[in-house]
Amino acid sequence: MLEQLFTKLENYYDEMVEIRRYLHQHPELSFQEVNTAQYIKSFYEKLGVEVQGNVGGNGVVAKIRGAKPGKTIALRADFDALPIHEENEVPYKSLNPGVMHACGHDGHTATLLVLAKALHELRDELSGTYVMIHQHAEEYAPGGAISMIEDGCLEGVDAIFGTHLWASEPTGKIQYRKGPIMAAADRFEIHIQGQGGHGAHPHSTKDAIVIASQLVLNLQQIVSRRVNPVDSAVISVGSFVAENAFNVIADKAKLIGTVRTFNEDVRTFIEQEIDRVVKGTCIAADCEYSYEFHRGYPAVVNHSEETDYLIDCVQNISGVHTVEESEPQMGGEDFAYYLEHVKGTFFFTGAKPEGVTQAFPHHHPKFDIDEKAMLVAAKALGAAALNY
Amino acid sequence: MLEQLFTKLENYYDEMVEIRRYLHQHPELSFQEVNTAQYIKSFYEKLGVEVQGNVGGNGVVAKIRGAKPGKTIALRADFDALPIHEENEVPYKSLNPGVMHACGHDGHTATLLVLAKALHELRDELSGTYVMIHQHAEEYAPGGAISMIEDGCLEGVDAIFGTHLWASEPTGKIQYRKGPIMAAADRFEIHIQGQGGHGAHPHSTKDAIVIASQLVLNLQQIVSRRVNPVDSAVISVGSFVAENAFNVIADKAKLIGTVRTFNEDVRTFIEQEIDRVVKGTCIAADCEYSYEFHRGYPAVVNHSEETDYLIDCVQNISGVHTVEESEPQMGGEDFAYYLEHVKGTFFFTGAKPEGVTQAFPHHHPKFDIDEKAMLVAAKALGAAALNY
Amino acid sequence: MLEQLFTKLENYYDEMVEIRRYLHQHPELSFQEVNTAQYIKSFYEKLGVEVQGNVGGNGVVAKIRGAKPGKTIALRADFDALPIHEENEVPYKSLNPGVMHACGHDGHTATLLVLAKALHELRDELSGTYVMIHQHAEEYAPGGAISMIEDGCLEGVDAIFGTHLWASEPTGKIQYRKGPIMAAADRFEIHIQGQGGHGAHPHSTKDAIVIASQLVLNLQQIVSRRVNPVDSAVISVGSFVAENAFNVIADKAKLIGTVRTFNEDVRTFIEQEIDRVVKGTCIAADCEYSYEFHRGYPAVVNHSEETDYLIDCVQNISGVHTVEESEPQMGGEDFAYYLEHVKGTFFFTGAKPEGVTQAFPHHHPKFDIDEKAMLVAAKALGAAALNY
Amino acid sequence: MLEQLFTKLENYYDEMVEIRRYLHQHPELSFQEVNTAQYIKSFYEKLGVEVQGNVGGNGVVAKIRGAKPGKTIALRADFDALPIHEENEVPYKSLNPGVMHACGHDGHTATLLVLAKALHELRDELSGTYVMIHQHAEEYAPGGAISMIEDGCLEGVDAIFGTHLWASEPTGKIQYRKGPIMAAADRFEIHIQGQGGHGAHPHSTKDAIVIASQLVLNLQQIVSRRVNPVDSAVISVGSFVAENAFNVIADKAKLIGTVRTFNEDVRTFIEQEIDRVVKGTCIAADCEYSYEFHRGYPAVVNHSEETDYLIDCVQNISGVHTVEESEPQMGGEDFAYYLEHVKGTFFFTGAKPEGVTQAFPHHHPKFDIDEKAMLVAAKALGAAALNY
Repeated sequence: MLEQLFTKLENYYDEMVEIRRYLHQHPELSFQEVNTAQYIKSFYEKLGVEVQGNVGGNGVVAKIRGAKPGKTIALRADFDALPIHEENEVPYKSLNPGVMHACGHDGHTATLLVLAKALHELRDELSGTYVMIHQHAEEYAPGGAISMIEDGCLEGVDAIFGTHLWASEPTGKIQYRKGPIMAAADRFEIHIQGQGGHGAHPHSTKDAIVIASQLVLNLQQIVSRRVNPVDSAVISVGSFVAENAFNVIADKAKLIGTVRTFNEDVRTFIEQEIDRVVKGTCIAADCEYSYEFHRGYPAVVNHSEETDYLIDCVQNISGVHTVEESEPQMGGEDFAYYLEHVKGTFFFTGAKPEGVTQAFPHHHPKFDIDEKAMLVAAKALGAAALNY
Repeated sequence: MLEQLFTKLENYYDEMVEIRRYLHQHPELSFQEVNTAQYIKSFYEKLGVEVQGNVGGNGVVAKIRGAKPGKTIALRADFDALPIHEENEVPYKSLNPGVMHACGHDGHTATLLVLAKALHELRDELSGTYVMIHQHAEEYAPGGAISMIEDGCLEGVDAIFGTHLWASEPTGKIQYRKGPIMAAADRFEIHIQGQGGHGAHPHSTKDAIVIASQLVLNLQQIVSRRVNPVDSAVISVGSFVAENAFNVIADKAKLIGTVRTFNEDVRTFIEQEIDRVVKGTCIAADCEYSYEFHRGYPAVVNHSEETDYLIDCVQNISGVHTVEESEPQMGGEDFAYYLEHVKGTFFFTGAKPEGVTQAFPHHHPKFDIDEKAMLVAAKALGAAALNY
Repeated sequence: MLEQLFTKLENYYDEMVEIRRYLHQHPELSFQEVNTAQYIKSFYEKLGVEVQGNVGGNGVVAKIRGAKPGKTIALRADFDALPIHEENEVPYKSLNPGVMHACGHDGHTATLLVLAKALHELRDELSGTYVMIHQHAEEYAPGGAISMIEDGCLEGVDAIFGTHLWASEPTGKIQYRKGPIMAAADRFEIHIQGQGGHGAHPHSTKDAIVIASQLVLNLQQIVSRRVNPVDSAVISVGSFVAENAFNVIADKAKLIGTVRTFNEDVRTFIEQEIDRVVKGTCIAADCEYSYEFHRGYPAVVNHSEETDYLIDCVQNISGVHTVEESEPQMGGEDFAYYLEHVKGTFFFTGAKPEGVTQAFPHHHPKFDIDEKAMLVAAKALGAAALNY
Repeated sequence: MLEQLFTKLENYYDEMVEIRRYLHQHPELSFQEVNTAQYIKSFYEKLGVEVQGNVGGNGVVAKIRGAKPGKTIALRADFDALPIHEENEVPYKSLNPGVMHACGHDGHTATLLVLAKALHELRDELSGTYVMIHQHAEEYAPGGAISMIEDGCLEGVDAIFGTHLWASEPTGKIQYRKGPIMAAADRFEIHIQGQGGHGAHPHSTKDAIVIASQLVLNLQQIVSRRVNPVDSAVISVGSFVAENAFNVIADKAKLIGTVRTFNEDVRTFIEQEIDRVVKGTCIAADCEYSYEFHRGYPAVVNHSEETDYLIDCVQNISGVHTVEESEPQMGGEDFAYYLEHVKGTFFFTGAKPEGVTQAFPHHHPKFDIDEKAMLVAAKALGAAALNY
């Protein structure tokens, strides 16, 4: 059966490329992916596959029911693009200036559509149900996953699998990881309200720049001293703004930053520690402040058994030459939410363009993928779906 | 003689007010004071006083020669305004939107013009020569004093006196100080060039915000540890800018600030210490930087004998009820340059508007003066000129 | 065969306890374990096992040669004690005041001796050779492993296994980890040479306390900003000494601390980064310094295949109820050196005393183990030796 | 009259030297000056001068009553020595090992005794009363001044004068200052109570060394940012002790330091600011602390009129070649207390040993004075007493 599926996928490879290039030329920003959603829905309608649009927003869910009873397996692909102006000179370059598929979601979608087509053709021999979750808005918090789940996309689902085309690794490599594979990505904002004045009269002021500078350094100690060294954590202040004339003392300063963690306890602990550090620093400086911590996506925490299962599934796929454990990645993904509801695993499918030593990173205006990686991804997801 | 002068000044008080209000309505920014200069020049021409315009720019210098031989005494008043939009609702409100006499230079000029008129009328009985230096551009470095001096305004001058109307002190108070009375006011600019990156990957970056924050704190130690505690010094970072998205790590940060000192050695020492601190901090952080130190006006250092002389002169002037030593002021003044060339002293003439507990500070959109203070200033400068 | 071995071990359990208690009563400090070494050697001599003393110091190596050809497997137990005064009130309390087996090495030795006795009795049916490495001086760098290896203890050895009785985990649990399981433990020492003086005259000094304080904080940033968040690393300044009268400024300060890492590149990077941070901080402060970095044991890096093999071996041992992955431990172990020469793995054998919720930590004056854990350890090591 | 006094003083110069050398050979520590007090008392008794011992401890007060009515003038000299072992090789070297007159109090006492003798001889022609205050325990807080005042030494006194022999300035120079001339000298002690632990496990500790280091740096900002730049202030942490093994994390750290100010408001403000900074820093670090601020002597604040008076008195004394304003000195003196009760002034009498470029500082084991400075001091004090 798997062999039949793989043969079909190989035969449909050209269509996969065609779909991906069409999507690449017509990128849409998160929460605005109306045409892309319509494109996906039409694809299924033409095949005669049961499909529902507007799931939790622009989401699309299709269902392929095998002739025999069995488990219900969900596969997920995201389809939003980024506010980046493409700098690649390729025939399939973005036709939407300032918007670009710079993270491979076009490839994810083409992969899943063609895999669905192949599964649909084999439906008479299949057991169970295959739920194709086409998710909008992965790039922009709160993301599309939450609302699609609320709208029922996981109802009856026994397990879910998803992959990300990964341009830093060569095509043919699959990377898995049990437990946390991608980080929780949170945002914080701190406003220091000191007291401004003339640069020559510090004693009649509360210097917001000095206070905020102290805070930046004090925050370093949370990572270096308060978090268990074997738990990864990052606190980065990305923005420090207190713009004034040279001869004044700043009355306020604004710090914005991000926190990355893999563990909910560490995440909550850091949220609280920042609060304490800000509070203490401002008491020492006799000033006011505000502090907000905005939770982004939680960590993507893969289930152990489903990950073992995936490793078995992909071990002998033609075109896969390496299956290895991934380092945890500090980036975020809202696939995290699906794994809070059902079992499953998220993995990386190497997609480095041929002939380059170092690929342009995701979100770069010259980002591109090796399209042959889509075939690997389709086989891996297909194997995971069929064997479960 | 002094009594005659004082009587004249009292009689011309209304004219003084009129001139001040005219100037207040017609403020001009530093280095753009063309009409004000013309106004001043015409005033002297109408009186028949020897006057020269375009001295070192928009400066105006008038000379009143007494009938008898004697010393040459210079008196100085500045006449530029500030880029501030007046918020006072007064009949003489600025007619030039966004520009305002918010530091009392209108009063300085009215004081000196009327004093000159009175001296001119007494010229047959006077000994020596009286040089009226009407200086442009005091508010904006490099200031007008340097170029007026280069253009000869101090030639033959034996001593110089100047005053500032001082709105924080009541009318009738005169404040003097031997040695440094106003600070050297310098500006520095530091650019930290780290290496940017994703907020989740600090190890592949050099975090410019952390480095600049460290620098802000390290600079504090110059004042607290390296400068003699009995020498006053201020280092203030007024502006810290590293504006970015929340999830990146800053590649660069820009610090701008001011240094205030009363002593040339301390000034030079701080300039060098900042350099060392920046250098060391950047070596520790393995990053690049640039550092510029721009010298503004030097400290106003009053001559001891001329200050003693002034104290004697103002002790018994009617309208003066207090003569006291001033604290050194951390603000700057380009009167400093005159005192590097000739003997003299600079003092403060209290000018707090009647009936207010706390006056609006200089450079505030609601700044105003008690006009009666002009009469005190005119008498003080007149006494200093006549008795020398 | 394994069943025979396990039966023997169970039968000899009382002897194991007896030996452990004897050793516990007669602890000796690292590099001074003369009597303990003699005790071990005699044990083998009485059995008629080939044994060699004074291997690389006080080390003892015994060899049990099976009747049939096969691999050579080494098992290692350490036997030194700690400079701690025992506070347990037990019949087998230390008779050597101030010295105590507070890390379970007495148990390690008893385990290995009895296992050796059992193997010796089965020698006619065994294949290959079994090398019993009784190592002195694990607690005190440079440790005994290096010199025992130099003295040939690993000659001809194909693989090595070792375990640590682990009082924080319950008896019956075995913890493994592929790759780094225990950290590299290094020591650094920094001397700041400022310039002392009177507390009232900071400007004529270079305040060593301020400089060293800055350094302590700057070192935090190496962990928080320069090391990859997924690589664990610790930099701790354990000692800060600048003792003076209250009214002076310190001329010197001494910092001593430790660095913990799991990865040689990170270890070397941190050694260099500390150097840069010290250098830059001292340039900023215009002072002198010295910096020494003393490498302790490297990380214990388990071989992947031997760890998988061990997992298989211990899975079904009676008395083992849990086999799970361990977190990496930030403590150090000179077992690390063996693994740099031959394949093998080091694992933890739970040994929490019965009935306690939280055991006293290793190196605590009230530390103790559950002696039944020795039987688990003996079976695990025995299985690893026989099956290889 | 003054001429007569000066002639007598010159004639008694050899006796002055003799007395000073006797005292130098027999130094006694603060609060233990029993023999010195007896020596002083006997001196007066032999002259037949009214004298009282045990004033407020070891203090001695003599009174010389002029034949005519007039003001009551007090002159003060201190007589305690320091716990320093003399390193000078002079005939009059200390005979009390470990104790030394290393601050010139021997000279002060010789000066005042001989001046008293001369005044006593002139008593029939003198107006008013001369109170000779020989104060014990100036070097060690709380000092002898408080208890002598409580014991009545200032009763009826109209004004007080005192001087310090000043080895950094040449003989013949007298330095005065209106207002604060010597600083308030306070001591503080801060204990940080964190939570100790193993150097490899920062997350289970609260690192007292990191917290205390932060505190050292945060304290810098009080001087650089919170105190008016024209007010001198010093905060120095002289001692930082957290001594531990290299591989632990410190549970506690102890900071001891000094604060110097010239102004009671600034003094109180700094005492409170340290409290706030410690509190805030410890809240940020979630740890406990204790903070004590021990007030030493207040600032010596000279009265303005008495200082002007002194300047007049010393202007034309033979042997005085320079009378100039002193910088405020950051050192402390319990002469401060007298000036809180009666008018007066404290001044410096240059006493640099002849032929040296830079004298050894006060409190140095090789400290010495130019004995001829005693004659200058005696004349200055005598003139101040007679003319008032």
